Parts: sequence; C-alpha cells; structure tokens
Amino acid sequence: MYYLGIDLGGTNIKMGIVNEKGEILLKNQVYTNVESGSDNIISNIISLSKKLIKDGEDYNYIVKAVGMGVPGPVDENGVVINCINLNWSEIPIVQILKKELMLPIFVENDGNAAAACELEAGLLRGINTGIVLTLGTGIGGGIIIDGKSYTGFHKIGAEIGHMIVGENFYNCNCGRNGCLETFSSANALIKYVKELLSKGEKSSSLYSMCNGDFSKIHGAMIISAAKEGDKTANKAVERAAFYLARGIINLVAVLDPEKIVIGGGMSKAGEWYLDKIKKFTEEERYFQEFPIPEIVISNFKNNIGIVGAAMIAKLNYIEKAEED
Amino acid sequence: MYYLGIDLGGTNIKMGIVNEKGEILLKNQVYTNVESGSDNIISNIISLSKKLIKDGEDYNYIVKAVGMGVPGPVDENGVVINCINLNWSEIPIVQILKKELMLPIFVENDGNAAAACELEAGLLRGINTGIVLTLGTGIGGGIIIDGKSYTGFHKIGAEIGHMIVGENFYNCNCGRNGCLETFSSANALIKYVKELLSKGEKSSSLYSMCNGDFSKIHGAMIISAAKEGDKTANKAVERAAFYLARGIINLVAVLDPEKIVIGGGMSKAGEWYLDKIKKFTEEERYFQEFPIPEIVISNFKNNIGIVGAAMIAKLNYIEKAEED
Repeated sequence: MYYLGIDLGGTNIKMGIVNEKGEILLKNQVYTNVESGSDNIISNIISLSKKLIKDGEDYNYIVKAVGMGVPGPVDENGVVINCINLNWSEIPIVQILKKELMLPIFVENDGNAAAACELEAGLLRGINTGIVLTLGTGIGGGIIIDGKSYTGFHKIGAEIGHMIVGENFYNCNCGRNGCLETFSSANALIKYVKELLSKGEKSSSLYSMCNGDFSKIHGAMIISAAKEGDKTANKAVERAAFYLARGIINLVAVLDPEKIVIGGGMSKAGEWYLDKIKKFTEEERYFQEFPIPEIVISNFKNNIGIVGAAMIAKLNYIEKAEED
Repeated sequence: MYYLGIDLGGTNIKMGIVNEKGEILLKNQVYTNVESGSDNIISNIISLSKKLIKDGEDYNYIVKAVGMGVPGPVDENGVVINCINLNWSEIPIVQILKKELMLPIFVENDGNAAAACELEAGLLRGINTGIVLTLGTGIGGGIIIDGKSYTGFHKIGAEIGHMIVGENFYNCNCGRNGCLETFSSANALIKYVKELLSKGEKSSSLYSMCNGDFSKIHGAMIISAAKEGDKTANKAVERAAFYLARGIINLVAVLDPEKIVIGGGMSKAGEWYLDKIKKFTEEERYFQEFPIPEIVISNFKNNIGIVGAAMIAKLNYIEKAEED
C-alpha cells in the first residue's frame, strides 16, 4: 500500500510517495512562498500532488490515501484553525483537497504527524509514552500516550512550542512572552544571533559569513560557525539548548515520558547538538535521583514531516477500512 | 464497603473512614511535627490508624483497605522516593504499614490521590481528560487521561508544581528556579508577602495582624487581608494567581484538558480567588480563538486528601479483587 505524505512548512511544501514501512519512494518539493497567499499555496499543493500521484503510477506506486501535516491546529472537521507562520485562518483544507484529488484525505498538526512517523516507522515503535519535538521555523510537538497519538480534548494539545519556559527579549507570535519556540526553534536561534550581532559582537565570524547583511543569516550557518568555535554562534546555540532542556524537564515533570525524539531542521546539527541538550537536561533535572527519559535524534531528519503525513494517512485509512 | 484514607501533609496527618461514595464518616487529625523525624511520624500514623479502625467497628464501619497520599513520589514497590517537606527519603511505607495494620495498603503521591478523589466522587466524574491542582504547602498535581489516573513511565509524572513558569527571587527545594509551586502555593504566597514586608511595605494591615512578627503570617491571614483591600496582600495574591494561570495555559498547550479542578488549602479562598485565576487564564491564553478548559474549585476543600487516599484504596482494592 502507498500513501502520499505532504509536509506543509513555512519555507517549503515537501511531499513524497511513502510505503507502509515509512520509506520515501518518490519525492518533490516547492518553495511555499507565504506572501503569495493561501489560494496560491493550496493551488501549488494540488498541482504538485496530482503530478506526484501520476508519476507514482508509472512505477506502480498507486496512492491509496493522502496525509498532510500543517504548522498549526486542525479541528475534527479538517479545518485548519490557524497557521501563524503561513497567515492561514479557518481554511477547510480537507474539503478542498478531497474535491481535487478524489482520494481519502487526512490532515493533522505537523507535530502529530511527526509523532505518527516515529510511532509507526521510527524510534518510538513499541513505546508506551513518548514525545516528539520538531525544531524548525517553530517548534512542533507530538505526544504518544498508551501507544497512541494524544491530542487532547479539543484536539489542540501537544502544542509544546507554546509552553512558557522563561522570559524572552521578544514576544511569540501567539501573543505571549517566553514560549519554548521563541528560545529553541531555528527562527529563535537566528533572532538571538541577530540581537547579539546588532549589540556589537563584532568579532564573530558570522559577520563575514553574511557580509554584514544580517538578513542572510540562517540556522545552518550558525550551527556551522558554532562548530568551528565562533563564540557568538556558540552562545546562541547553548542558549537554545538550555531552554530546550528546561522545556524537556517541564515535560518530564508533567508526563514522565520514556523517550523523547528530536526532529526537524535543527536536528541536522546531529550528535554535537544532542550532547548539549543532554548536558543541560542532566543539569536542569529536578531532584537528581529522578530518572530522565532517553533523548535521541530522529533518523528521519527533515523527512519526518513527509513520512509522518503519510503515516497519518496510513493509520486513518486502515482505521476507516476496519470501520467499514 | 469502607476505606481508611490517610492524608500525610507537611502540617497535619489527617485521616478518615470513607464510604464508597466518598463521604467521610469518621475523622481524626494530628500535627505532623516534621522535626520529630520519620520514625515518630510513622508511629503516629500507625497508632492513629489503629484507633480510627477500632472506632469504626463500633459503628459497623469495617475498613477493608487503607489508602495514603504522600507529598512526594512513590515507586511501584510502595517505597516513598522522597518528600522534601517531610525530610523523607527511601521509606518502604507500604511494607511498614502492612505489617502493623494487617490490611491491604496502597500509597500514592497526594496529587494522584486528589485526582482519584475528583474522578470517583467529585467534579471529574465522567471526564475523559482532566487535571487536579492542589494548592497547599507545595503544589500537587493529578492528571486524568482516558478516564484513568495518569502517572507516566516511571510513575513520577503529574508533578505539575515543578513545571518552570518564570524566574523567582528564591529557589525551589527541588534545586531549580521558577517552579510553579514557588509562585502559587500557600508557602509561596507567604514567602512573597514576607519579602514585600521586609522591603518596607509598612502600610500593610498584615503588620498589625502579625504584630510585626513575620513568622506568624499564614495563608488564611493574607487571603483575609486581601479580601479586605490590603494592597500588599492583594499584590501577593494576584501574583500567585497570575503564575497559576500561566501554569494552567502551559498545561493547556501540552494536554488540552476538558476541566481543571483546584483543591487544597488555598482553594478555601473560594470564588473570589477562582475569579482571579480565571481572569488571568483568559488573558494568558495563547491564540485568543483557542478554547480553554473549565476551571472549578473542588467541593472537597481540605478533605480532598483524605477522600482521595480512600478512593486510591477503593480503586486498587476492587482491581485486586477482580484479578483474584
């Protein structure tokens, strides 16, 4: 059985045909272009999906259902409540896509999609209680309880990026101050580096890397500079890891999970970054005798969104088939 | 069927014989006297329990099982891992009590006991996803997921009082800074009032109420002064409510519960305090269009610990009977 997984992000729309084991067989990607507006973005999703489904047929990868992860909450009728990073509000996405693609469509928050990815095909297989954190433009979260995805009473839970963990120099786009994603997302890392540079940390190699144009600074550049020993970059990376650890210990206090999986763009920083997260988690734990969960980096890296969306399609498609 | 419920607190040991509906039929209480040490406290628990079980027999209230809630984590073997407020560490309480009382004994964290109370006999009956917060010496938490008490992988979850929600002027006894219980417990309220008074807020009526002896200030005194319009007391109460609301919204972001029940000593401040919590929760919500849970005050007030402990006994006793 094959599924189309669509990962709608603030930067790119990525999609792939995925088999039951979570392997991507065909893949496609286009720039999201948030400024072009929701109609244009949806129209791009539709045409790219149609093309990929068609391409799949040439290889006999017949898509049975489509899953999509979006960077915001989705209600039980398949309406995207909002996506701040996309300027979306109240978009009946399931209805729109169903009409165009003529296939079963299942849309969920991208954090839940990441959790489905790890639960079905990744590092949370067989785990009873686990958490996935995706560190991208924002921070997505997925929670596994009793071996199932947990989303809460109104289906708006697992928004772990909006847990307040401290006080920050800028507000979150949700309206509050101190949300985890304003400390530990890729965007937060960039914002903090810009803040340091604009305050005059001129010896940083990031100055020359961006030719003095701060708008050219991106996450990978900061990670790279930090790995090469740049003090400003390291200060920013350590801050992101420190607050992430604080968020992890908050989750430990509330949910006491067995395992935490880190995915998303920033997870590409690899073991080097994981070691920092683990060090701070060790230091931040409350009551030193309390056990803390295993923390690992997803094997899916940036593909977690595509595979997760496909696994959402798989889980719902199978469930629906069983009901019929 | 009758159960003995024991509420071991930092101030008092309270216990009662409780029926299946959660009604207290006989009740007894003794000062905990933390300084006397764990052996003395346990010896008091045993003699008071024996006396109450015996008294119950006169009324034909035959106790079938004993439940106890303790202010700290308990492992699956019935060993209290630690209770900071009691100076307890690694106490095999179930083993000790079983030998003396010759009845089935079940011991859990007091937050879980509070959740069992509300789930079985209180405001969380029939609720799928709910949270109980007990505002006492510290802050206890209980989480209901799928209509059952949730405690996590190592059984040390639902320690909601140790979720970091900001930066505070003193550290938590868990070793971190900014835990919810250092802002919104009764102890936190008292500490903050002392801080304000020692910094010279001399116009406060609390000065005369305690005759200048700050060690005499207690929670009920502050609530009473605040209700009568004292500015210092009000400032402290508002701060406690503000951070509690922040903690509640953090829980909403993670768990999206249907209902939150507030219990413990500070809940005796009643609707007046609940209104403040609700006001700040409304202001602190992230994304104004997101639904927030209903917040209510437990009907059990200070008895939540006794009834909860009895309900822990009831639930485990029935479960065990079904297994046999």
